[in-house]
Amino acid sequence: MIKLAIDAMGGDFAPKEIVKGVNIALKQFSDLELVLFGDENEIKKYLEANDRVKIVHAESKLDMGEKDPVRAIRTNKELSIVKAFKSVADGECSGAVTAGPTQGVIVASHLIIRRIKGMKRVALCPELPMFAGKKRLLLDVGANTEIKSLHMLQQAQFASIYASKVLGVEKPLVGLLNIGTEPGKGRELDLEVYELLTQDPNINFYGNVEPKELLTTECDILITDGFSGNLVMKTMEGTAKALGMALKEEISKTLGGKIGYLFMKKNLANFKNRLNPNEIGGAVIFGVDGVVVKAHGSSNAYAFSQAIKQARLAVKGDIINKMKENLVLDNE
Amino acid sequence: MIKLAIDAMGGDFAPKEIVKGVNIALKQFSDLELVLFGDENEIKKYLEANDRVKIVHAESKLDMGEKDPVRAIRTNKELSIVKAFKSVADGECSGAVTAGPTQGVIVASHLIIRRIKGMKRVALCPELPMFAGKKRLLLDVGANTEIKSLHMLQQAQFASIYASKVLGVEKPLVGLLNIGTEPGKGRELDLEVYELLTQDPNINFYGNVEPKELLTTECDILITDGFSGNLVMKTMEGTAKALGMALKEEISKTLGGKIGYLFMKKNLANFKNRLNPNEIGGAVIFGVDGVVVKAHGSSNAYAFSQAIKQARLAVKGDIINKMKENLVLDNE
Repeated sequence: MIKLAIDAMGGDFAPKEIVKGVNIALKQFSDLELVLFGDENEIKKYLEANDRVKIVHAESKLDMGEKDPVRAIRTNKELSIVKAFKSVADGECSGAVTAGPTQGVIVASHLIIRRIKGMKRVALCPELPMFAGKKRLLLDVGANTEIKSLHMLQQAQFASIYASKVLGVEKPLVGLLNIGTEPGKGRELDLEVYELLTQDPNINFYGNVEPKELLTTECDILITDGFSGNLVMKTMEGTAKALGMALKEEISKTLGGKIGYLFMKKNLANFKNRLNPNEIGGAVIFGVDGVVVKAHGSSNAYAFSQAIKQARLAVKGDIINKMKENLVLDNE
Repeated sequence: MIKLAIDAMGGDFAPKEIVKGVNIALKQFSDLELVLFGDENEIKKYLEANDRVKIVHAESKLDMGEKDPVRAIRTNKELSIVKAFKSVADGECSGAVTAGPTQGVIVASHLIIRRIKGMKRVALCPELPMFAGKKRLLLDVGANTEIKSLHMLQQAQFASIYASKVLGVEKPLVGLLNIGTEPGKGRELDLEVYELLTQDPNINFYGNVEPKELLTTECDILITDGFSGNLVMKTMEGTAKALGMALKEEISKTLGGKIGYLFMKKNLANFKNRLNPNEIGGAVIFGVDGVVVKAHGSSNAYAFSQAIKQARLAVKGDIINKMKENLVLDNE
């Protein structure tokens, strides 16, 4: 059995969509056992009876707009996310899934589950939307603003293990996001990371990748520091938003456009869906001593069930122990 | 009269499209005097007679794929770009326009026209495609990988002067590209730049802008370091490319899509055009002691004439002298 902790109160549509996602996942996977943390009465409204699920009541929840998650998590032991993550720290559950606010999830991972010994940084790693037949991992987007090359190497190792176990890619190809494709491009940091990635026998290193290939590269994993990755992620989002608006604008400008729209309404809906967060997997926190999947804040039941599926595969693939065996230690 | 040096041999379609762009610009602006540098015989094939244009022969040209532009520019005085930029350095022309390779243009600006005294870094600043009724400047995208906060302040000052004189924006609003909107977000560098931008009375500072607002923000200028800006620019490009492919894919999947396409062919072409480099202005080199506009390598005649128009406005607006008056000096 794979036992996961579910933060039933995190996310814009919690607990309803979260609990419905739990119902879906339980039906889909018979090896899954789930513990839901949150408001027992609220959860019961939506939870379908199943002997592989139980509820642990939690008095309060981390607000999606919480300005000071560090304080909230440190001082309030009754938060559903705190209780859920504590069950992972205690070894009662093997992983946790939450749709709570990103910074709160990172902070709670740090403070409650804690880093794997020897890993100096925690990274937030989303799956990019599928393009050209491939889902790609981008990391770090969690905004580690100061980072060392060795930490980026560790993250690349983690991502390689994750991609092989969860995405089922045999020898995941790792690219270093950079401003040019030639070796020697980039900052001091990038040059060092390039060297480390080249030397690591466990990493299938492709070389530098410019973000104009972000969604078309043959790489499975794109690695950069947390500041750059966060900018790249948000630029992708911003460009997609602006282009969506522009497409709508151009179509509605003429009668032909409006008629054409009626014919291809479904096609355009599918196009829009290509970037729908509900169709894209959650982000994984790399570097803490337990599996943590952060589903999108706006997750519906289906999206949350997908995040549970991700966590299940990560636990099944034993990624945390595999990472520990692989770990290159810092000499600091 | 505004006298500009034109590198007639730079760009994928040089000299033909460059010279045709010159023809357009000369017709459009009666205060324009142009000196074309390049292969005299080739240029003559396309150049329309005009007493405000002359040709200075140059034996060779900087290859679009030149791997070592520094060496090429240092050793070959017969390159059209070298001769064109030299005429700016000598004060014979007030600005230069080229569609040559980006790194070559930056190197030539540095080595031949040279930096404005007191400006420590040169920045490459493109106009972003117009969205939500606005053209925005993004800088630096030229990949200054190591930069100090004061240099970014200088670039913001330069961009403010440029936006007011060339884009005609009265008090251009400057945003700092960052991973969060709250003050205090980002790296040490960003915190320092935030402070400097806040204090500068000549800068209309908006605060932090996340790149998910890149094409919709009310800011006229978005500033970041050269590494980040280059990644952001290329991510925009990559996302647009992938979305374009996805749209095509989805439309061609069904008969309805194909019929709809016939009705909105023109609308979709216009949509595609929104990101067409020929519709977007060239990039300007900020920080050298003369106006330099770098048109897209793939410029057609119209695009190149637009780049000439940009250079004309920059010279007319006296942006170099305005920048010199404004310059905050480094105490190094």
